Amino acid sequence: MSFQLQDYLTDRRSRVEAALDRYLPAATCTPEHLHEAIRYSVLAPGKRLRPILVLASAEAVGGDPDSVMPAACALECIHAFSLIHDDLPCMDNDDYRRGRLTNHKVYGEAMAMLAGDALLTLAFELVAEAAGPVAPARVVSALTLIATATGTRGMVGGQVVDIESEGQPIGPEKLEYIHSHKTGALLTASSVVGAMLCGASDEQQAKLCDYGRSIGLAFQIADDILDIVGDEAKIGKPVGSDEGNDKATYPKLFGLDESRRMARAEVSAAVDAVAEFGEPAEPLRAIARYIVERDL
Amino acid sequence: MSFQLQDYLTDRRSRVEAALDRYLPAATCTPEHLHEAIRYSVLAPGKRLRPILVLASAEAVGGDPDSVMPAACALECIHAFSLIHDDLPCMDNDDYRRGRLTNHKVYGEAMAMLAGDALLTLAFELVAEAAGPVAPARVVSALTLIATATGTRGMVGGQVVDIESEGQPIGPEKLEYIHSHKTGALLTASSVVGAMLCGASDEQQAKLCDYGRSIGLAFQIADDILDIVGDEAKIGKPVGSDEGNDKATYPKLFGLDESRRMARAEVSAAVDAVAEFGEPAEPLRAIARYIVERDL
Repeated sequence: MSFQLQDYLTDRRSRVEAALDRYLPAATCTPEHLHEAIRYSVLAPGKRLRPILVLASAEAVGGDPDSVMPAACALECIHAFSLIHDDLPCMDNDDYRRGRLTNHKVYGEAMAMLAGDALLTLAFELVAEAAGPVAPARVVSALTLIATATGTRGMVGGQVVDIESEGQPIGPEKLEYIHSHKTGALLTASSVVGAMLCGASDEQQAKLCDYGRSIGLAFQIADDILDIVGDEAKIGKPVGSDEGNDKATYPKLFGLDESRRMARAEVSAAVDAVAEFGEPAEPLRAIARYIVERDL
Repeated sequence: MSFQLQDYLTDRRSRVEAALDRYLPAATCTPEHLHEAIRYSVLAPGKRLRPILVLASAEAVGGDPDSVMPAACALECIHAFSLIHDDLPCMDNDDYRRGRLTNHKVYGEAMAMLAGDALLTLAFELVAEAAGPVAPARVVSALTLIATATGTRGMVGGQVVDIESEGQPIGPEKLEYIHSHKTGALLTASSVVGAMLCGASDEQQAKLCDYGRSIGLAFQIADDILDIVGDEAKIGKPVGSDEGNDKATYPKLFGLDESRRMARAEVSAAVDAVAEFGEPAEPLRAIARYIVERDL
């Protein structure tokens, strides 16, 4: 029987969401509004791509996905923190995200900023939580990996360069810098950390790192393409909004056809990177293929 | 020869500042402005109380202070992150801190927020850095301790309750909740984590936790008193600024004399908590006494 990606995604998403609900402090705990604000954003409907990658990368090396669930949820917390801060007036100033009011529109700016700060902190608390089934030395490595992917050499660094480049003409190199840092770094960390916690060899980790880099790039190119050819309902923001923003995109730099070709090449590279892992890496390969099957 | 606190503080402060300079990414690394903004706030003149407590708590249990320097700097990064975010327009909206322009007044709001985010991330990266001389299991415990002290059950939680209480009459219990979380939690973690990383017993850690809680409270009461009796030059903000803000303070709730008595009682409790540690805990005891010797 062939691998059913949709069934896999549905199952893993519901496991991740149940775990998030357990790990996040209850909205009845002091300070209630802070915990409400945190839950509002983290438990909003989402693909849960990052935590699912963590689970799938554990499986790819024969590990137990349950043992890496705290780390999987940590990656989702970091993703949620970044969205909350990104939406703030001093950043993108967005009132809506996927059709729902953004965090600060509901809870106010101060609370939204603090909810983001708390989520980033909780993420590292969750990484520590993995210790027990996992040897502490591996937890420390995972901590370094995730922190590096999040900080100035990762996501936050990419956001800064993105902000500083707005309204300026930028070339392919800077565009890749921005995306490989702003969204790519966390996707790469997600693709490696599950396997790392399950004791993957350095060689296996390097291959998963290649996988993560390729799907990160494919994902970004696909998003840029969808922003042009997609419709509002599918991606939840006005079509062409990046263009109106004067933001550089792959189709703008390379044209639509070449962008499609680039996305497909990255997906192939991702699939090839984990070829040697055999059957247990089928979820990772199916996730990679799925990226360019989204109506490009 | 009796213990010379000022010499000790001067020496440790310069060691901490040299280490911070080493650990923080250079301002010449991409993204330059982000690293500049980070260095602007972290390397601003400061007491370095939290990192010095980390070093002193390591020494108190016979540990090597150099082995906990990354964790010491992590605590300073978390402190700096909290000040940058606190000063933002959506929070306290302060233009100056200790006579210097606040981070967002120099680098803009978006950069200040991201610099804070990056510093919080860097802090956890530094905790991981302690592994090597320190057993990974202890690093994981330290990570949990620091994250808990920072997040919704610690500093961020205290900030939220503080904001929500502004302009409202609050009683002694809520005042203690705010301070024990907003500033106390991180001081307590600072007082324990150095010893924890050096292999302190649970009993030793519990005593250091008592020490930290007492100096945290003494420190806050002393600050409230200084805010009334001190002069601008000494504390770097307008005298009575908390009063103008409608913020609850110890002198407002208990009067000046009773507040002075409370601060001294907490200092005695802190000194007593580490009595059994003997000579190696002399720096911790001297730091505690110093809190109420600041012109109260």
